[in-house]
Amino acid sequence: MNPSSTILLTDLYQLTMVQAYVEQDMMDTAVFEFFVRRFPARRNFLMTAGLEQVLDFLEQLHVSPAELEWLEQTGRFSRSCLDYLEHLRFSGDVHAMQEGTAFFPNEPILRVTAPLPQAQLVETRIMNLLNFQTLIASKAARSVMVADRKPLIDFGLRRAHGAEAGLLAARASYLAGFAGTATVLAGMAYDIPIYGTMAHSFVQAHTDETTAFEHFALAQPEHTVLLIDTYDTEAAAHKVVALAPNLQQQGITVKGVRLDSGDLADHARKVRRILDEGGLPQAQILASGNLDEYQLQRLIATGAPIDSFAVGTAMTTSADAPSLDCAYKLQEYAGRPCRKRSEGKATWPGRKQVYRHYIQDGRFDYDTVTTVQDSDSGDPLMHPVMTGGRRLVPAPKLTELREWAATQLALLPDSLRSLEADHPYEVRISQSLQDLARAVDQYV
Amino acid sequence: MNPSSTILLTDLYQLTMVQAYVEQDMMDTAVFEFFVRRFPARRNFLMTAGLEQVLDFLEQLHVSPAELEWLEQTGRFSRSCLDYLEHLRFSGDVHAMQEGTAFFPNEPILRVTAPLPQAQLVETRIMNLLNFQTLIASKAARSVMVADRKPLIDFGLRRAHGAEAGLLAARASYLAGFAGTATVLAGMAYDIPIYGTMAHSFVQAHTDETTAFEHFALAQPEHTVLLIDTYDTEAAAHKVVALAPNLQQQGITVKGVRLDSGDLADHARKVRRILDEGGLPQAQILASGNLDEYQLQRLIATGAPIDSFAVGTAMTTSADAPSLDCAYKLQEYAGRPCRKRSEGKATWPGRKQVYRHYIQDGRFDYDTVTTVQDSDSGDPLMHPVMTGGRRLVPAPKLTELREWAATQLALLPDSLRSLEADHPYEVRISQSLQDLARAVDQYV
Repeated sequence: MNPSSTILLTDLYQLTMVQAYVEQDMMDTAVFEFFVRRFPARRNFLMTAGLEQVLDFLEQLHVSPAELEWLEQTGRFSRSCLDYLEHLRFSGDVHAMQEGTAFFPNEPILRVTAPLPQAQLVETRIMNLLNFQTLIASKAARSVMVADRKPLIDFGLRRAHGAEAGLLAARASYLAGFAGTATVLAGMAYDIPIYGTMAHSFVQAHTDETTAFEHFALAQPEHTVLLIDTYDTEAAAHKVVALAPNLQQQGITVKGVRLDSGDLADHARKVRRILDEGGLPQAQILASGNLDEYQLQRLIATGAPIDSFAVGTAMTTSADAPSLDCAYKLQEYAGRPCRKRSEGKATWPGRKQVYRHYIQDGRFDYDTVTTVQDSDSGDPLMHPVMTGGRRLVPAPKLTELREWAATQLALLPDSLRSLEADHPYEVRISQSLQDLARAVDQYV
Repeated sequence: MNPSSTILLTDLYQLTMVQAYVEQDMMDTAVFEFFVRRFPARRNFLMTAGLEQVLDFLEQLHVSPAELEWLEQTGRFSRSCLDYLEHLRFSGDVHAMQEGTAFFPNEPILRVTAPLPQAQLVETRIMNLLNFQTLIASKAARSVMVADRKPLIDFGLRRAHGAEAGLLAARASYLAGFAGTATVLAGMAYDIPIYGTMAHSFVQAHTDETTAFEHFALAQPEHTVLLIDTYDTEAAAHKVVALAPNLQQQGITVKGVRLDSGDLADHARKVRRILDEGGLPQAQILASGNLDEYQLQRLIATGAPIDSFAVGTAMTTSADAPSLDCAYKLQEYAGRPCRKRSEGKATWPGRKQVYRHYIQDGRFDYDTVTTVQDSDSGDPLMHPVMTGGRRLVPAPKLTELREWAATQLALLPDSLRSLEADHPYEVRISQSLQDLARAVDQYV
């Protein structure tokens, strides 16, 4: 079962609401917007990601005959509702910020304009896709900012929340500036560079460590990176040095070693010296093992001679903030703007645009959120990407989105580049939007 | 692309190691065990989950022609390695604890016995499946323990980490004792009861709340649960009462209302009084909105008249501990026990069994981890489930596993049922296992 585009990948209430809309013939145009209300404590900005998967989902949305039959036998849906679902294809419009854009609280990053039942039904999967990839791109960007341009590699698949999370985390972290991933299928699916070394089990399966290193080098002559912490890190580094001339005779150069435990900075210094004195100055040091942006910042501050880092679980689960306070809210139905006023969860009504303003050196200054009718001197960030259920342009290359994301990080004000919470970026709500909210509140 | 059983859903290093094993003809039997080292701070026990998905994966493991071609064009793999992968099927044995079993640190919950390249290659996906579902079942069990037998419903799909996470979280939480899920596809895939009400957008799409309630009731006459917090909770409760006689004439009984914001205990009391005085004593109150086990415990302690709870993001992401410190480690190769000694990550060698001992009232007393050759008076928890790559018995029904899980929770010592960390459960390491570890250390 490929769950990615079935209408059953949704909350039951979406289908029960669709039934009511079909029966009441409420098929007018609805406008929903996706945004993040409050940010996690340690996020000064977030980075959009997941739009391409949303557009794929919308283009492929359908129900299979077997799924339709299953829905029918639940006894919860009328014939008219089942007929509607059987022929349902997404025919709406989508506006969105480009993936890799830095954004701030209460700014819409995606807008869906479609007949009400369609726009409602797609809520769950749109949130599922945008929440997760935005979460991961935003987390990964923090490591990228502190890594001092050293390559970062995603090692997180094993503790990602399922297969799709692993694949999409590889995509989102690459978008945010990682150099690549260990996840082979992500390499195939998204054309992301793949990286890999060896595991402790490889050393353990051999009766001695040197033989293990030699066997690995023979199998991967172009990618000989050896894991040296299975028993004693520095002793293993000496074994690498002793083995190197033998490998060199076979045309194999040791590309590097990996450290995965203990005091990484201390081991890196000692191993660097052993490698340098042993005639392997070209061999790089890769560090891994429960790393996150704080560990990276600390390791880099010590000046430890580590050339690249693998970041796994903390990034791929966004461990310090594993979800966003995001929402996909009805902003207009049949030409009538609306908003939710639930305690602590009120939203701005109507179709909105976000304009970004810059200071003279090109850095971000402040944003304005307005109604779409408003004019503003800033750069508009929401652009049309789908009309009538079809993409307006082919999916951009991931490498292009990655360059855009790098530019965004470069243009962040310094205060927002801190790993800790800083004073918030200014997001102005235009007078026209405030007026609209007041008007909407009067006629409910 | 259905990622669930391809050998590309793995870390690159698994494939590079397989290449070395193939080239060195290291095809002897390897034994790997999966276990959790240290538990998260607020977990006194964990609950196994995910075994069935692991067995599905192992039975279906393969590479497609397109995937093989992609691997080849990377230029990283020899002809002999590609030939091996093309014909690879999993032919090993698996021993495991039944899903829903409570377990403790360093106890193996799954053992794979297979030719070395096979056992190595499946590491990543096995960890990916067991880490996630065990994480979620363990988190969900905490809500179940404090819920005082009130039904709990999974509302987490929208902020789950992708589609598979949403589906498997529905499964794992149902296994742990939830009553069902809002995720429709999980209902179809795993035969889990599905639940759903209506969203704020449904109310907003109508020009008045009462009309929205009536339309919903007409569409869902058997499942009329109305969301009443879009504007003013108590005012909406009065509207429900006023509408009820009209609905009753059409044969529709209001089943309940849902509260989703504000002080849930306070709203529940006021709404209960309005419903009772309005002649709707049968209408139940469902509460939702950022709930977790702590909120549940607090709400239940206040005696608030809430009949059931929906739990979403906190459960489906295991928000306070979004990963486990789990490992899948080589314990034996070609008849030779082995273990990793990396700093802070040393493991117990060899094939192991876990025995559970009980006190007289049937509660858990302590566990013993032994070598499989050892005898012990406790109940063995690791059982054979797959041999030669095929399941020994058909997949058990999820409802049976759910009953087993309920029994496990009932037999936990009171100290482990607290939401906070208590003194740890005793896990004894047998003398034979300690002797084996010493012997292994001597010959490395």
